[in-house]
Amino acid sequence: MIYPEDAEFEMRVGAFRSRMECDIAVISHSRDIYYFAGTIQPSILLIPKDGEPVMFFRMNMDKGKDETWIGDCRKGGIKEVCEIIRNYSVIGLEKDVIPLSIYESIHKRAGRDIETTDITPAILLTRMIKSRYEIKMMEEAAKISNAGHERLREALHEGISEIELAAEVEYAMRRAGHEGLLHIRRWDGFLHYGMIASGENLYIPSGYPGATITGVGMSRAASYGASSRRIRKGDLVMADIGGSYAGYHSDEARMYVVGSADELQLERYEILLEIQERVIPVMRPGNRVSDVYEAAFKVIQEHGCEEWFMGFWHYGARYLGHGIGIEIDEPPLVAPGVDIPLQEGMTLALEPKLIVPGWSGVDLEDTFLITESGAKPITFSRRDLVEV
Amino acid sequence: MIYPEDAEFEMRVGAFRSRMECDIAVISHSRDIYYFAGTIQPSILLIPKDGEPVMFFRMNMDKGKDETWIGDCRKGGIKEVCEIIRNYSVIGLEKDVIPLSIYESIHKRAGRDIETTDITPAILLTRMIKSRYEIKMMEEAAKISNAGHERLREALHEGISEIELAAEVEYAMRRAGHEGLLHIRRWDGFLHYGMIASGENLYIPSGYPGATITGVGMSRAASYGASSRRIRKGDLVMADIGGSYAGYHSDEARMYVVGSADELQLERYEILLEIQERVIPVMRPGNRVSDVYEAAFKVIQEHGCEEWFMGFWHYGARYLGHGIGIEIDEPPLVAPGVDIPLQEGMTLALEPKLIVPGWSGVDLEDTFLITESGAKPITFSRRDLVEV
Repeated sequence: MIYPEDAEFEMRVGAFRSRMECDIAVISHSRDIYYFAGTIQPSILLIPKDGEPVMFFRMNMDKGKDETWIGDCRKGGIKEVCEIIRNYSVIGLEKDVIPLSIYESIHKRAGRDIETTDITPAILLTRMIKSRYEIKMMEEAAKISNAGHERLREALHEGISEIELAAEVEYAMRRAGHEGLLHIRRWDGFLHYGMIASGENLYIPSGYPGATITGVGMSRAASYGASSRRIRKGDLVMADIGGSYAGYHSDEARMYVVGSADELQLERYEILLEIQERVIPVMRPGNRVSDVYEAAFKVIQEHGCEEWFMGFWHYGARYLGHGIGIEIDEPPLVAPGVDIPLQEGMTLALEPKLIVPGWSGVDLEDTFLITESGAKPITFSRRDLVEV
Repeated sequence: MIYPEDAEFEMRVGAFRSRMECDIAVISHSRDIYYFAGTIQPSILLIPKDGEPVMFFRMNMDKGKDETWIGDCRKGGIKEVCEIIRNYSVIGLEKDVIPLSIYESIHKRAGRDIETTDITPAILLTRMIKSRYEIKMMEEAAKISNAGHERLREALHEGISEIELAAEVEYAMRRAGHEGLLHIRRWDGFLHYGMIASGENLYIPSGYPGATITGVGMSRAASYGASSRRIRKGDLVMADIGGSYAGYHSDEARMYVVGSADELQLERYEILLEIQERVIPVMRPGNRVSDVYEAAFKVIQEHGCEEWFMGFWHYGARYLGHGIGIEIDEPPLVAPGVDIPLQEGMTLALEPKLIVPGWSGVDLEDTFLITESGAKPITFSRRDLVEV
């Protein structure tokens, strides 16, 4: 495993600092610590606006010191952190993820009313532009999601259940080096290797937050992903799966059909291919993120299938994709009104879907890198509606 | 899939209410919502001290209403919740898991300074005693972890890597119906199917919070669990894995050796078997949780191996096990000073370990049910040091 040079980490911290609207950032979410410090050993990382970062390790400082480039490593937790931050006025916290109890503990120990700001937007904007190292890791992740799709083509047959098929796909990805989880920046959010679902399970809105086609899962305790439904001849099968490598992700959905695809299945899937084809030329520096959504929606309008795009009725969502990196779902959201300019080094997962109540659904997702000359896919499994 | 009767849910809410130290509880952690309402559709559950519970669904209310026994289901989120809670004085929140941003949003919308208390202890104390239904679900989960251990015995051979072995074990559990994740009540905590590790990886403290033997993982981004290390003849191999069924867990660690076990391996593993044998008679109503720890520690003292028990040097932890249910790690912690009386319906995962620097480690974990007449194991894979 190759890790970034110290200079890359210093650049990341520098880019974050230029966006900091606080005097000291208290970073405790493991993905953010990994991004800035290169380790996930249990710790809290302090980045002052001016001066050197300090890292406090709760447990295994030896391993942490081995893994991080940060020079000032100390043993400690909230108590030691508070001794430092009481000298600063405005304290930055990752408000979307840190629990209330941590805030209360800081507040109590700080010995005065503290002023806090949310540093998550600044962190995520920094993370939005990927380095060459990060892109390489995502390319490795894409090899792993491709291994999953390859295995699916071999394993899919009439009568196999969704969960048996998921077991095959996950087995192949794990053997290819998958770290076992997809990281999602959502408190109380969980993601396994992704979603595998078939037939009518493709249009049942099962309520996993933020996902459109989810499958129905094995029970009410986890009502998304593969179920015990047996796949029948003629069924559409969706695999929306992610690779992981050194903490980086790929996101890649493909469609399969058991036996021969019928005309309607082909026709609706073709619309997704057309979206991809027409959206790629729009994904270049100089355009805005919202332009990408609009280009896709234009195709949908031409085909008159607005009511099924990204979900039907009130289950629909107005987006086309999302950034991706050390979390599967990062800014920018590719959606109307997102006025962020496309930039070299952005990585976007685009996932157009048609979800038709009473019928089924189709989905096509690739992860793209924005380069100077346009968009280049990172994921590479074959893109036709695969008949097995 | 069979779900509990309404009467069981009403009993759960009643037991929680008798511990409530607030006027209304705002429950938003999906595991707690599942426990009280029987669904995990994105929602917020309000339980007033007096009066009927109300549930607000953010997205798919139709599926939520189908799944829950709660009569008063409405569409809404934080805004609608605040319209209700502004009529109460003390608001209960799950402070260990809900993010600061949710608290700030409630605080802002409530229109006044709100007084809050932490309801997590009351929820977890309620969840500590399992119903017959819950025990049945855990027994189903134990069949799934057993399928993992059975597959491990078939698949383990000289030269296989830890991750290849993990792929086999996880494949077998997934095919047996595993829901894909182990739920852990720890913000920023992740668990896949558990930990598989071998040889010297059994004593490397890799810093996964709260776990003693962790393995080293595939990269610094996930430095626990299976790695690419190839297993050699004579190596000890640990599989500390969990089943999941309808949201309920089993936790079960076993030890394997490639080829014949040597005397030291057998001798150290025998100490764990002796602990289990001598601790079981202590696990009966009337004794305290701390008595269970003390009985185990006495065995350790008799063998003079205090410095390796549950970790060596400052990496050591003072506990023997934990409660288990819809989260893998629930109260009570089986540790010195935990003065909770053992009660019928408690489920405890005991996991004595010896971790010897420069050598390796041994681990033996079973999930037990406390009955009127004593402790009964729920997990059931063979308990000898398996030679393959």
